[in-house]
Amino acid sequence: MAEHTMMMEEALVALLKDKKYFSLRDILSTMNPADIAAVFDDLKVERLPLLFRLLPKELAADTFVEMEPEAQELLIRGFSDSELREVLDELYVDDAVDIVEEMPANVVRRILAQADPDMRKQINEILRYPEDSAGSIMTTEYVTLRPSMTVGEAIKRIRRTGIDKETIYTCYVTEDRRLLGLATVKDLLLCEDDNARISELMEENVISVGTLEDKEDVAQMFSKYDFLALPVVDTEGRMVGIITFDDAMDVMEEEATEDMEKMAAMLPSEKPYMRSNIFSIWKNRIPWLLLLMVSATFTGMILNHFEDALAAQIVLTSFIPMLMDTAGNSGSQTSVTVIRGLSLGEIELGDLPKILWKECRVAILCGLTLAVAVYFKILLIDKLLLGGEGITLPVMLTVCITMAATILCAKLVGGTLPIVAERLGFDPAVMASPFITTIVDALALLVYFGVASLLLHI
Amino acid sequence: MAEHTMMMEEALVALLKDKKYFSLRDILSTMNPADIAAVFDDLKVERLPLLFRLLPKELAADTFVEMEPEAQELLIRGFSDSELREVLDELYVDDAVDIVEEMPANVVRRILAQADPDMRKQINEILRYPEDSAGSIMTTEYVTLRPSMTVGEAIKRIRRTGIDKETIYTCYVTEDRRLLGLATVKDLLLCEDDNARISELMEENVISVGTLEDKEDVAQMFSKYDFLALPVVDTEGRMVGIITFDDAMDVMEEEATEDMEKMAAMLPSEKPYMRSNIFSIWKNRIPWLLLLMVSATFTGMILNHFEDALAAQIVLTSFIPMLMDTAGNSGSQTSVTVIRGLSLGEIELGDLPKILWKECRVAILCGLTLAVAVYFKILLIDKLLLGGEGITLPVMLTVCITMAATILCAKLVGGTLPIVAERLGFDPAVMASPFITTIVDALALLVYFGVASLLLHI
Repeated sequence: MAEHTMMMEEALVALLKDKKYFSLRDILSTMNPADIAAVFDDLKVERLPLLFRLLPKELAADTFVEMEPEAQELLIRGFSDSELREVLDELYVDDAVDIVEEMPANVVRRILAQADPDMRKQINEILRYPEDSAGSIMTTEYVTLRPSMTVGEAIKRIRRTGIDKETIYTCYVTEDRRLLGLATVKDLLLCEDDNARISELMEENVISVGTLEDKEDVAQMFSKYDFLALPVVDTEGRMVGIITFDDAMDVMEEEATEDMEKMAAMLPSEKPYMRSNIFSIWKNRIPWLLLLMVSATFTGMILNHFEDALAAQIVLTSFIPMLMDTAGNSGSQTSVTVIRGLSLGEIELGDLPKILWKECRVAILCGLTLAVAVYFKILLIDKLLLGGEGITLPVMLTVCITMAATILCAKLVGGTLPIVAERLGFDPAVMASPFITTIVDALALLVYFGVASLLLHI
Repeated sequence: MAEHTMMMEEALVALLKDKKYFSLRDILSTMNPADIAAVFDDLKVERLPLLFRLLPKELAADTFVEMEPEAQELLIRGFSDSELREVLDELYVDDAVDIVEEMPANVVRRILAQADPDMRKQINEILRYPEDSAGSIMTTEYVTLRPSMTVGEAIKRIRRTGIDKETIYTCYVTEDRRLLGLATVKDLLLCEDDNARISELMEENVISVGTLEDKEDVAQMFSKYDFLALPVVDTEGRMVGIITFDDAMDVMEEEATEDMEKMAAMLPSEKPYMRSNIFSIWKNRIPWLLLLMVSATFTGMILNHFEDALAAQIVLTSFIPMLMDTAGNSGSQTSVTVIRGLSLGEIELGDLPKILWKECRVAILCGLTLAVAVYFKILLIDKLLLGGEGITLPVMLTVCITMAATILCAKLVGGTLPIVAERLGFDPAVMASPFITTIVDALALLVYFGVASLLLHI
């Protein structure tokens, strides 16, 4: 795809240079809006308005929606009032809201001034909902039917009003704005009797979400139920909008990215990496680096405390990175598994005992395997191959026992912490790798020196 | 949701105990298949067949699709041939394939024996495609139109043939099985002239995928283009199936989970955590633990090599965990960002120079911040508060300089490795945290002892 975009870009630039506007328009008209937007986003700024004006009206609006906010802002600033109005007229309300959210205040004022009063009202309504709520990603344009309509009347209504709706395939049956049921276009088309009443044919057990529901939970419902759209109701049970599957997909993707960022000790980013400036990247990365650096004081303190023991058996030092890394890896394996399970709804809060029991057994298996492996590794590589000095049997046993014991600790901490975090209302993903590494590092050292003092009498 | 499921479960079990089968049937009929399946999956085995038989035919099939493979197998083994045939008749081909893929051979043989010849042929066809290909997740049931049809004829055809199709909303215009264009039901319904030809109205620039295309790339196309369905064509350009958005969503979710698992040093799991036995969890976790344990030999060797230096300045030991952890964290921050960018298509192979330049500058910012912070942290906490011995100015400078330098190294390694892996055809996610931690650990130690030998003359 990427190479294809680049070739297309060069071809378009060449045509633009030669002022072959008709050919340009012909080529662009065959392309998908998302692909046109990808080409436009990479173009030099001064060419953008000219190329954009070549697009047919509807394609122009579809392309506009797919472009990066920087390019959108640039275009809006270049639009005349009537050009802006033309683009706005073609937009769905939820797309208009997405654009408004990214623009600086003076551009927002211009957009709202040019939008027709009805759209302005709807934009302002959606903007009122909190950032992560279902309300913030819904659209207020959907097809409604009355229960008393016949199938034939319903189809006629869809044909008359469908043009402005983001989806016509799921229609909602309402009375006084109260949601009574839904009928899909498939139900309507496949119904053999044009005079059947909507009230007989509609699905009455409709799953809906509240305006303030977390958008991540809403996205999860889409993947569970395979919905095309989900109705949004206010606290009084009145229908206020719908969320469509494409927005749910975007949320799923964003949330997975955020979870990965949190697991890797970053604050969630607001923009894609290539469009973020270095200061915002720095701002997202430095807090955790600082916090974890300071929290490593504990491991330092433990090492200080056992300074004399280490000086007496300096060979112990060389196994510290291996023990700490293995502990960290074991802990993250478990915590990442649990965190992902929680966010997909596969694991619930009440599962903690089951998880700990499972992790216990897995830890014993992993611990035994690694203890045996590390024994032979030290014997063959460190002692025979590298001729390490001071590697006695008690030293080897100390490392093996520490290995098995820390894996057990690490897996239990890794399984417990995310669930405790979730129960306390914190974000489990933040509790993942970074924090857990610090904790199990300290645990690994404590076990190490504890075992060493028993076996080596230091 | 979870609590709701549990309450529902108790209510159903109570009704079942009292043999109130009619009420049970009434309640189940109001529920969504995915929710019924969730309740059924948790039920004791002996109750399952009885409850399942209470469901109306269509709901039974929809519920069956949503259930866990273990419960499906149990039910199939209990079905009479005619019951099995009834369920199979209601399934879409792609769902039938999903079930067949999870069943043991003798159950598969029974399923194929009971499926009607046409479905059997289609199942076998889809099973031929490799596991991660577009072909393996497609369905072969879709609506086709001829270019010469009128809109009215097309709608009639949809009404006649739509009942067995997973989606009727996107119809494909073909001639000799060659894909000419597509027409959506929205286009057809909103077209004012029932006598307009499909060839005039259809969208001719259709994006399609090959049967062997990677299903992850296909899922990415859904999120880019907001498609409801995507046509699949064979190497000769003949249309063989469609992929629907719900399957693409599942793939997106699976792939994100897999990436997280790989980043946390695990092999991708095949089943959800709660349904995996401890041996398969152990099998997924132990290879990386072993590999990373052995690769920690390098860090051990470095420490051994500088044993005498450490013995002379034992205070240096206590900063090793902090330096290694910070290096690991910095490296993972960058690698996870790049890996996610690659898998979302936001970062391309050619972006490496841009990324390195960006990471360089971010690393300098982070390195300077942390160097200053660690200076004051050592001064205030380690020296004044904890009264650490041997913390001289040269020691502090050694730590600060090492900190800044390793962050730079870590971020450059973290940015380079995933892109090099991708270019070489390896999986970038595997190159993330685990490997990078080992590499930057070693780098951190080398820098540390290098700087120490310069400043402390050891």
